[in-house]
Amino acid sequence: MTENQNTILQYETVAYLPGERAIRIIDQTLLPGTIRLILLRTAEEIREAIYLLKVRGAPAIGVTAAFGISLLTEGALPAVEDDTPERHAENYEALRSFFLDRAAYLESARPTAVNLAWALRRMQSVLDSCGSRQEMTMREICALLREEAYRIRNEDVEVCRRIGEYGLTLLKPGDGVLTHCNAGQLATIRYGTATAPMYLAQERNYGLHIYADETRPLLQGARLTAFELSSAGMDVTLLCDNMSASLMRTGAVQAVFVGCDRVAANGDAANKIGTSMAALAAKRYGVPFYVCAPTSTIDMSLETGEEIVIEQRPAEEVTEMWYRERMTARDVKVYNPAFDVTDHDLITGIITEYGIARPPFTESLRALFKEPQG
Amino acid sequence: MTENQNTILQYETVAYLPGERAIRIIDQTLLPGTIRLILLRTAEEIREAIYLLKVRGAPAIGVTAAFGISLLTEGALPAVEDDTPERHAENYEALRSFFLDRAAYLESARPTAVNLAWALRRMQSVLDSCGSRQEMTMREICALLREEAYRIRNEDVEVCRRIGEYGLTLLKPGDGVLTHCNAGQLATIRYGTATAPMYLAQERNYGLHIYADETRPLLQGARLTAFELSSAGMDVTLLCDNMSASLMRTGAVQAVFVGCDRVAANGDAANKIGTSMAALAAKRYGVPFYVCAPTSTIDMSLETGEEIVIEQRPAEEVTEMWYRERMTARDVKVYNPAFDVTDHDLITGIITEYGIARPPFTESLRALFKEPQG
Repeated sequence: MTENQNTILQYETVAYLPGERAIRIIDQTLLPGTIRLILLRTAEEIREAIYLLKVRGAPAIGVTAAFGISLLTEGALPAVEDDTPERHAENYEALRSFFLDRAAYLESARPTAVNLAWALRRMQSVLDSCGSRQEMTMREICALLREEAYRIRNEDVEVCRRIGEYGLTLLKPGDGVLTHCNAGQLATIRYGTATAPMYLAQERNYGLHIYADETRPLLQGARLTAFELSSAGMDVTLLCDNMSASLMRTGAVQAVFVGCDRVAANGDAANKIGTSMAALAAKRYGVPFYVCAPTSTIDMSLETGEEIVIEQRPAEEVTEMWYRERMTARDVKVYNPAFDVTDHDLITGIITEYGIARPPFTESLRALFKEPQG
Repeated sequence: MTENQNTILQYETVAYLPGERAIRIIDQTLLPGTIRLILLRTAEEIREAIYLLKVRGAPAIGVTAAFGISLLTEGALPAVEDDTPERHAENYEALRSFFLDRAAYLESARPTAVNLAWALRRMQSVLDSCGSRQEMTMREICALLREEAYRIRNEDVEVCRRIGEYGLTLLKPGDGVLTHCNAGQLATIRYGTATAPMYLAQERNYGLHIYADETRPLLQGARLTAFELSSAGMDVTLLCDNMSASLMRTGAVQAVFVGCDRVAANGDAANKIGTSMAALAAKRYGVPFYVCAPTSTIDMSLETGEEIVIEQRPAEEVTEMWYRERMTARDVKVYNPAFDVTDHDLITGIITEYGIARPPFTESLRALFKEPQG
């Protein structure tokens, strides 16, 4: 089904449709040209959707995997002939074996995606806790799994919303806000992380002016962020990554919000390549620079960003995207890191679901983890 | 004619072929996929080559216009029936009228390109100086015009070569050098400006490692710089503009060389959009940042870069290049400035044909203009 462009926000990035025995996603590989909702029913369909980036963004992948393994395990129930507590041990063994097989299959779609493995482990621990509860039927166990999948989904929405509320306190009506890559609703279930303050501002008629870096090489900013924010009715201006200093120099930007992939204990933040250059420009022109980070992305075991290993991506992303024709000479090599590290001294604040950490981050982040509020 | 890739340096960007009554250029719109040399003979062909960017780069356009107006004016000679000094006044009037008509036509190809108008004015002043010299034939006047066109060409080569020699003193064998956009041979006749130190280093087996920013939106770095330098046998690595901070952080870059469109009296330098972000990254990581500037681009009438008006370019360059398909939502606006200003405090040195100006530039640039050496 194809929908009119101004409707994306009515669809969550990933939804569980129990009546249809399906998971519904927006096929992100077709955006922004076409909004197509697709239903995933089999393990093959779910894995392929993750593998082909039809659904992407760490939180969205995690929720897809959780809903997916719940759906598949429920699908195995009809094979359980006698679902009575008396048969618990035998049936549980069969169900668990089925679960582990399908979970391993789903996880193989993107082996390095942390949230994918994390969500599946969390689902498995619910299953494991039922092994000794001989009073339970398999149907009841599956109901617990579904509850856990919804809990993962709901927590994601809640974390994003709270990041949005904290972030909103940093904005005034009419402000210009720059973002990089897509830490948007399309990477989560609702709100996104870096975009959460923007969605809440839109609900409250702040009339923000959003500036979206296109984000080379894969153009997540041009294809996804500019799309989802303009679909929500915001005033969005696209720019090439190398234009943000020029833009900030004009005084058009009052704050930068970006997402992150990993934050070290000292506040160094790894995020999509180019983030650190936007931070350098922000520092130069006195624009506050905020990293939106669910606490799940803060890794207190890393002392600094130097310890974060940066993935190098294929050269073809730079030399042959879009045009389907090589744009550079054959002999030319390519430097194509997926992420960069923004040093903590360039960061004004790290916005989490528990509040805004300010420098010195070594102390403020530790304090966040000591007393996680509500 | 189509040539193998590793041969570009045997062809100058613009050449006058008197025997063929033609100007020869490399069609830059086909690079890097195809190296096609084309001959321009008529006013229409010359104007179209400039208009369609088959030849681009301020110095190269200037030389094309100079050779072009010389070629066209010589072509008018057969119409001069009696080319004797006795007929000077009458013939001169006709020749000058022909010249002015064709010069205005060529200049209309890119009305804002400074070197185009500048080269044509310089040719015209030679013609004007002949008005009172009644002893001259039209053939002799045309010979003077051709000499002047060659002088413009030779001066360009000489200026670039001298910038290269000064720049080379800043490099050691094995250095990594980053550049942005194309201030290369393809924008001049030989050597380029920012690339001149690289070509000279290559002649002397320095074994440099060149890093070329792709330069969004029009990809002059990916299409032209990476191409011409790798064709000359250099080790070239392409990167997206947003990756240069990440690269400099690794320690791979020992110097940045960029060209410029205009330099103010205080050293502020306008150049292709994104240059100032590379300069911010260089400052951050302690990498010297050099602007290669023929003195013709230094405008002592501008106190600072704030006075330089920046051209805004069409949105489609950002949203619809390469893919020939829109990559962003319809409602999205676009910020697309062609240039940005790099503040003088980010610049380590300004390399001219008369030497290297160092901070404070207000003094060092004035000194350059006071005593222009040989």
